[in-house]
Amino acid sequence: MASPSTSSDSPSNTPAPAPGTLGVWFVGARGSLATTATIGLSALAARLTDETGCVTGHPDLDPRGLAPWADIVVGGHDVDTVPLVKQAERLVAGGVVPAILAHQVAGELEATEARLRPGVRGGEAADQRAIVEQLADDIRAFAAGVDRVVVIDVSSTEAPHDAGADAVTWADLQAAWAAGRAPLAPSSTYACAALLAGAPYVAFTPSPGIDVPALLELAAERGLPYAGGDGKTGETLVKSALAPMFSTRSLAVRSWTSINLLGGGDGSTLSDPAARASKTGTKRSGLESMLGHEVPGPMHIDYVEDLGDWKTAWDHVRFDGFLGTRMTMQFTWEGCDSTLAAPLVLDLARLTGRAAAAGETGPLAALGFFFKSPMGSEEHRLAQQWDALLAWSRECADRVSS
Amino acid sequence: MASPSTSSDSPSNTPAPAPGTLGVWFVGARGSLATTATIGLSALAARLTDETGCVTGHPDLDPRGLAPWADIVVGGHDVDTVPLVKQAERLVAGGVVPAILAHQVAGELEATEARLRPGVRGGEAADQRAIVEQLADDIRAFAAGVDRVVVIDVSSTEAPHDAGADAVTWADLQAAWAAGRAPLAPSSTYACAALLAGAPYVAFTPSPGIDVPALLELAAERGLPYAGGDGKTGETLVKSALAPMFSTRSLAVRSWTSINLLGGGDGSTLSDPAARASKTGTKRSGLESMLGHEVPGPMHIDYVEDLGDWKTAWDHVRFDGFLGTRMTMQFTWEGCDSTLAAPLVLDLARLTGRAAAAGETGPLAALGFFFKSPMGSEEHRLAQQWDALLAWSRECADRVSS
Amino acid sequence: MASPSTSSDSPSNTPAPAPGTLGVWFVGARGSLATTATIGLSALAARLTDETGCVTGHPDLDPRGLAPWADIVVGGHDVDTVPLVKQAERLVAGGVVPAILAHQVAGELEATEARLRPGVRGGEAADQRAIVEQLADDIRAFAAGVDRVVVIDVSSTEAPHDAGADAVTWADLQAAWAAGRAPLAPSSTYACAALLAGAPYVAFTPSPGIDVPALLELAAERGLPYAGGDGKTGETLVKSALAPMFSTRSLAVRSWTSINLLGGGDGSTLSDPAARASKTGTKRSGLESMLGHEVPGPMHIDYVEDLGDWKTAWDHVRFDGFLGTRMTMQFTWEGCDSTLAAPLVLDLARLTGRAAAAGETGPLAALGFFFKSPMGSEEHRLAQQWDALLAWSRECADRVSS
Amino acid sequence: MASPSTSSDSPSNTPAPAPGTLGVWFVGARGSLATTATIGLSALAARLTDETGCVTGHPDLDPRGLAPWADIVVGGHDVDTVPLVKQAERLVAGGVVPAILAHQVAGELEATEARLRPGVRGGEAADQRAIVEQLADDIRAFAAGVDRVVVIDVSSTEAPHDAGADAVTWADLQAAWAAGRAPLAPSSTYACAALLAGAPYVAFTPSPGIDVPALLELAAERGLPYAGGDGKTGETLVKSALAPMFSTRSLAVRSWTSINLLGGGDGSTLSDPAARASKTGTKRSGLESMLGHEVPGPMHIDYVEDLGDWKTAWDHVRFDGFLGTRMTMQFTWEGCDSTLAAPLVLDLARLTGRAAAAGETGPLAALGFFFKSPMGSEEHRLAQQWDALLAWSRECADRVSS
Ligand SMILES: NC(=O)c1ccc[n+]([C@@H]2O[C@H](COP(=O)([O-])OP(=O)(O)OC[C@H]3O[C@@H](n4cnc5c(N)ncnc54)[C@H](O)[C@@H]3O)[C@@H](O)[C@H]2O)c1
Ligand SMILES: NC(=O)c1ccc[n+]([C@@H]2O[C@H](COP(=O)([O-])OP(=O)(O)OC[C@H]3O[C@@H](n4cnc5c(N)ncnc54)[C@H](O)[C@@H]3O)[C@@H](O)[C@H]2O)c1
Ligand SMILES: NC(=O)c1ccc[n+]([C@@H]2O[C@H](COP(=O)([O-])OP(=O)(O)OC[C@H]3O[C@@H](n4cnc5c(N)ncnc54)[C@H](O)[C@@H]3O)[C@@H](O)[C@H]2O)c1
Ligand SMILES: NC(=O)c1ccc[n+]([C@@H]2O[C@H](COP(=O)([O-])OP(=O)(O)OC[C@H]3O[C@@H](n4cnc5c(N)ncnc54)[C@H](O)[C@@H]3O)[C@@H](O)[C@H]2O)c1
Ligand code: NA
Ligand code: NA
Repeated sequence: MASPSTSSDSPSNTPAPAPGTLGVWFVGARGSLATTATIGLSALAARLTDETGCVTGHPDLDPRGLAPWADIVVGGHDVDTVPLVKQAERLVAGGVVPAILAHQVAGELEATEARLRPGVRGGEAADQRAIVEQLADDIRAFAAGVDRVVVIDVSSTEAPHDAGADAVTWADLQAAWAAGRAPLAPSSTYACAALLAGAPYVAFTPSPGIDVPALLELAAERGLPYAGGDGKTGETLVKSALAPMFSTRSLAVRSWTSINLLGGGDGSTLSDPAARASKTGTKRSGLESMLGHEVPGPMHIDYVEDLGDWKTAWDHVRFDGFLGTRMTMQFTWEGCDSTLAAPLVLDLARLTGRAAAAGETGPLAALGFFFKSPMGSEEHRLAQQWDALLAWSRECADRVSS
Repeated sequence: MASPSTSSDSPSNTPAPAPGTLGVWFVGARGSLATTATIGLSALAARLTDETGCVTGHPDLDPRGLAPWADIVVGGHDVDTVPLVKQAERLVAGGVVPAILAHQVAGELEATEARLRPGVRGGEAADQRAIVEQLADDIRAFAAGVDRVVVIDVSSTEAPHDAGADAVTWADLQAAWAAGRAPLAPSSTYACAALLAGAPYVAFTPSPGIDVPALLELAAERGLPYAGGDGKTGETLVKSALAPMFSTRSLAVRSWTSINLLGGGDGSTLSDPAARASKTGTKRSGLESMLGHEVPGPMHIDYVEDLGDWKTAWDHVRFDGFLGTRMTMQFTWEGCDSTLAAPLVLDLARLTGRAAAAGETGPLAALGFFFKSPMGSEEHRLAQQWDALLAWSRECADRVSS
Repeated sequence: MASPSTSSDSPSNTPAPAPGTLGVWFVGARGSLATTATIGLSALAARLTDETGCVTGHPDLDPRGLAPWADIVVGGHDVDTVPLVKQAERLVAGGVVPAILAHQVAGELEATEARLRPGVRGGEAADQRAIVEQLADDIRAFAAGVDRVVVIDVSSTEAPHDAGADAVTWADLQAAWAAGRAPLAPSSTYACAALLAGAPYVAFTPSPGIDVPALLELAAERGLPYAGGDGKTGETLVKSALAPMFSTRSLAVRSWTSINLLGGGDGSTLSDPAARASKTGTKRSGLESMLGHEVPGPMHIDYVEDLGDWKTAWDHVRFDGFLGTRMTMQFTWEGCDSTLAAPLVLDLARLTGRAAAAGETGPLAALGFFFKSPMGSEEHRLAQQWDALLAWSRECADRVSS
Repeated sequence: MASPSTSSDSPSNTPAPAPGTLGVWFVGARGSLATTATIGLSALAARLTDETGCVTGHPDLDPRGLAPWADIVVGGHDVDTVPLVKQAERLVAGGVVPAILAHQVAGELEATEARLRPGVRGGEAADQRAIVEQLADDIRAFAAGVDRVVVIDVSSTEAPHDAGADAVTWADLQAAWAAGRAPLAPSSTYACAALLAGAPYVAFTPSPGIDVPALLELAAERGLPYAGGDGKTGETLVKSALAPMFSTRSLAVRSWTSINLLGGGDGSTLSDPAARASKTGTKRSGLESMLGHEVPGPMHIDYVEDLGDWKTAWDHVRFDGFLGTRMTMQFTWEGCDSTLAAPLVLDLARLTGRAAAAGETGPLAALGFFFKSPMGSEEHRLAQQWDALLAWSRECADRVSS
């Protein structure tokens, strides 16, 4: 991991114009995912771990113009104040991060600690415009020490939120603020701050974030790229690989049941039905689009404290074959959510940073590979998303390398 | 199902030059798969069932020039003599085919019965050239009543067989025959007969079949297309959808265990270790090619009589993620082998028939979607095979329609 | 199945004093379970099927004094009016009952049809005492044709219901009725009617039924035996076999997740959260009692229409071993609810009938083997329940045989 | 863990006559299981861990007269020479033992190291009587420092071995040795040495061990108790809890498939088909005895290196219910073999030590709860074994306490 303004070579990306230092600004920087990503980045930079789980380390993906691991620096917002080193201890106790690794990168964690700033919660009795400006100033200060910043939302999932008539256009939002109203959900204040600070924005959560007409207008006006939403790391990932199999073989899926058990901070947040509604929304949409029809079947996300960051998902698929034959498939997925998501978040920072350098603006549809509910795209099939990612990656690499 | 020399409209394929009557010649015509396909074809022709499970019924696949269901007629070889109607009763008892359907198509089964001819076993003390000629004559006689014949091997899986120096070239084979030797495995005598009768050949089994240098030379010389090998209908199908997920996400698969339980005729054949060797060979190759490295883990095919045609497969995948985190995925597949395979066999007949009409020759690599060990292709990833099938299908449709 | 007043020998119960004809009166006589039991009884009587699934057919269970299958006759109440023969057709279509069998026993079903009477629903604007008397008269009329009647509730699960101060004593209930109030849930009106008609009562559902102080007083006063509640046929059955394994091995269960998917009438009823509350209550109690501590973990019962009478349950158990090692076990159960429950309902009729003959009164704790929430017993461990059942069975047999 | 000749109090067993110091002599003392047991014993003695997984810590089991954890001392034989501390490191790396714990008990491991002696392999060109005497001398020397010794075989599983006519009686064996023959398998030389040294013997493996007529005669003559064989810790344990459920419910099991994946030393040993034969033998016997009939279905034990000490078992049960309905149950067990077995081995030492004090001789049938193939008993049902263990435990406690 870079100290700001420092540059070095990364293992996998040999000869290409130096992309400069990349700053990743995490909203939710003290959470399990952000902490794992921060630890992992330091480990990659120091070659203490390999690129397993990193899509940008895949041999088929064009690496030209991606920031080397050692040239990436982390900062961020969080409403929590427990130090990163403590968060790392929690992850070690939960079996997410090896003890030895947390020890080896402790110095880097403390350096990152110094770059974290207090976040904002909803319902705070304050001037929302001022809050947004404060957040934007934090990001600008961080940006001063790096060549490019990407803001990534990895904070707790919020409930669905409709900003309504107050946020249809950027002018509406200004007027609402002037009138003392606070139409944005917290996640959207961060998205707004990112844009005002000139930073591309990535939503790894299903929270409202940038997906508000006034903010999309702002992004377009500033010529900034963005991507989202809701990282695809577990059961939905498997679905996006499997559902096309049923569809292309003309097998008729009659029900698809999805059970998700997880503990940890994310599990605890999602034990609130309102927050869960955001999540089950993004999880469901893809399946029906891939299969081309409504698919009944329960979908549960249950908090099982004892599981910690380890998610167990069980899916049960009932399908009919030729002559009406009834068949079933079921799978159990036992994954560690934070180590599945952490490398993707780093990948998204590198890819979005390079996309901005290549002049990309608006929704980055080709990043759909990473998301449950991809902005700018209706494609949910994993393999087709992969092919699209590779093609787009080559284009971006060409542009930044020439 | 057509009576030979008759033509009619099929539901899904309306306006296109009439492709004429298509004859499907099954090697193993009394087996579970062939009998299910024969019943199913009659049911499709009479609109007693829908196209669930039929790839050629998929809305994205170009149907122009495919033989309508009602214009397809079945014949074939088998060494068994139990009547088709009895085979159908067995399938009804095993829950593969609905009793009512078997009843409704009984007349068609008897018509097919009249078009079946005795097959040949290995080790028969006879002149192999004469045997091949007899088989070819049977096919020619059948061909006289239809516009085009496709020969499909759905007979019992044979052990791996090396025809050796006697079958390197067509001339070698002639010489070996002249010298009274019989170098070909039974499945290869059928493949040879198909070619001599001018019929495209499809291997739905992993038996040697056409995959003998002398026969590939003959196919090239006659300008005939062929495809194979070993239908991909269960656990291997799932693997070809899932393995790319691990690979594109840079997850490191450490072991992949595959357990297959099945009864029925196929299960019984595969309880012979020699026959099983053919099968586990085709099953294993794809996985390692998709993952790019050797993958340890047992692979079993076990005969469990009580399961009949119902195959239960359990797969257990151990993979590592970022920071060395150990994770697992497992799935259980409970499918009816014959109803999974039967529509594919009909699809292959239609697609291969149209390919021949479109002037295709040699291995039909774009049919890799259907096979565990695709001839003419190294691509095992299901989604990429699907895209390739759709593109090629459009080309063939264009050619036969113009 | 007997015509009333007819007697015959049963296969498994050779020489013992003839117990006479046994009448089984089903509350919910047109439901899936009652219909399957009725068909199955006829099939057993006619030796069209064997005793698989029948506990009273187990070689270790003392059969002396049990009513032979051929000496049992069915009657009952239901609010539905669709004929039994139609219900049987539905079960055939759903794969619960073989078509041939339904056909063979059609005559018996029509005979039973003539013995069914209209039931009562809750909320009916009527005199509850009069309703109970009408129900009791129906049972008495049925009883006239047999030697003994057992009433078994297999109707739709009701929501939990507190009859309150109006049903603390039999006198309270009389007073409440006199005052025009209707404190009993429908299931309790049937239980009351059974007692008034002098019949033992068995609750195969978790509905309130007999479990009301005033009714327990009535039962005691009349010297009638009763048993319940809620048949243990699927996931809870497995739990009662497995949980003691963890406990006796001192393994520490940290969470136990239970997912139940089912369609059919029962699934549809249980998609109502109020009814489901009765069910999850009975399902949960046993586990914690067997493990000796609270066990977190979600428990879902989900309606998946497409599954019909086939229940799929998935359970996931997280437990710790020595030195804090984290381990898991999971199971998937795919059972047909009605054919699992039907023989048990017949067993309960036989065992309860014999118990009454042997002079048993009050809660039949030794029948706990059959129930999720056994009346009169805190023992939930299946094996211990089995041993208790065998011992008690021997006692009853001794008494009725001497 | 005690230093020899030292005594102290154990947490769970307060007032009872001090049973004195107990020595556990492990055959295979450097293996995963023995090392885990040695570490765990020290941790129990020092109250660094709790009694999870220890059957003798169960509140229902009578603890009077059991050696307190702190009064147990370990010694043993092994053919391997890698120090215990190194073995512990391997177990830490494999996630079996927490790093902190291994660190805390390192001193105790070194003390145990000093009590280990070289073992013997088969096929050694030496005088077998002399070998046995040397082994017995090692055990006698260890016994000198404690009040009682129990020898437990936890060494690598050997292939089935028939000692033949040379070992029918103790006299035969003497004669064979005198004639320079070596009829005993290595495991049997240890069993013989234990008996000669006056120590009770427990076989936690399926190796031949004491199960040789000549040795059983010797045990009887010396009045020594013994127990075995083959610890029941995973899939077989689950079977012994589940199979009685099918049987008591009169459900007809048609096939039972058992797949065991494991790495580690045991997995590696069992990848040898001869050793595996011992294991599948003990695993299979119980099932058929519990179900009362032959049960087809494959049983595999596969070495999957990557799994280390973690065993994954998948079982698939096909059973029929009433009216011939086909149903299935499957389970997946993911357990850590060594931490499942280690506390049982300690339990067996305590229980066998107390049994000897109580004057028990011959096969300890009541210890069948612990074994796949219980010596002296045909009972395989876990719950019934549990009840028998509790009753016998109470008797022994009474005898040693009075
Ligand atoms: N881990 C995965 O695989 C995965 C996949 C998809 C999506 N996600 C999403 O990523 C997010 C993070 O997951 P996690 O496991 O790290 O959760 P977590 O609960 O451990 O961390 C969330 C962090 O966000 C902080 N936070 C909450 N509200 C905030 C606010 N208003 N401003 C700033 N910070 C705030 C919290 O203090 C906490 O530190 C969740 O929304 C989750 O749904 C995770
Ligand atoms: N899903 C599937 O069903 C599936 C998938 C892939 C491959 N396959 C392969 O398809 C083949 C057929 O499967 P099935 O389930 O119908 O098996 P089956 O045993 O029911 O039928 C095989 C038939 O081949 C006949 N036969 C055997 N030797 C012959 C010979 N020398 N000449 C002519 N006929 C011969 C047999 O008499 C039998 O009628 C098998 O090789 C199987 O491995 C099936
Ligand atoms: N394995 C099992 O099937 C199983 C196990 C345990 C408990 N049970 C319980 O058994 C009951 C029956 O199950 P099912 O699958 O047959 O359900 P079902 O829905 O098919 O049948 C219920 C029947 O009860 C009738 N009914 C409803 N209200 C009534 C009333 N007030 N008076 C008289 N009849 C009434 C309905 O009309 C219907 O015919 C349910 O309560 C279920 O929870 C079943
Ligand atoms: N859950 C369980 O762990 C479990 C359950 C039942 C049975 N067992 C049995 O317990 C035994 C030990 O299992 P493990 O996992 O510790 O295996 P392991 O391979 O780790 O250890 C076996 C040890 O025995 C030693 N050994 C081999 N031959 C010997 C000989 N002739 N004399 C003395 N020592 C010898 C080896 O050097 C090694 O140290 C195996 O036989 C296994 O089948 C284990
Ligand atoms: Na900058
Ligand atoms: Na009567």
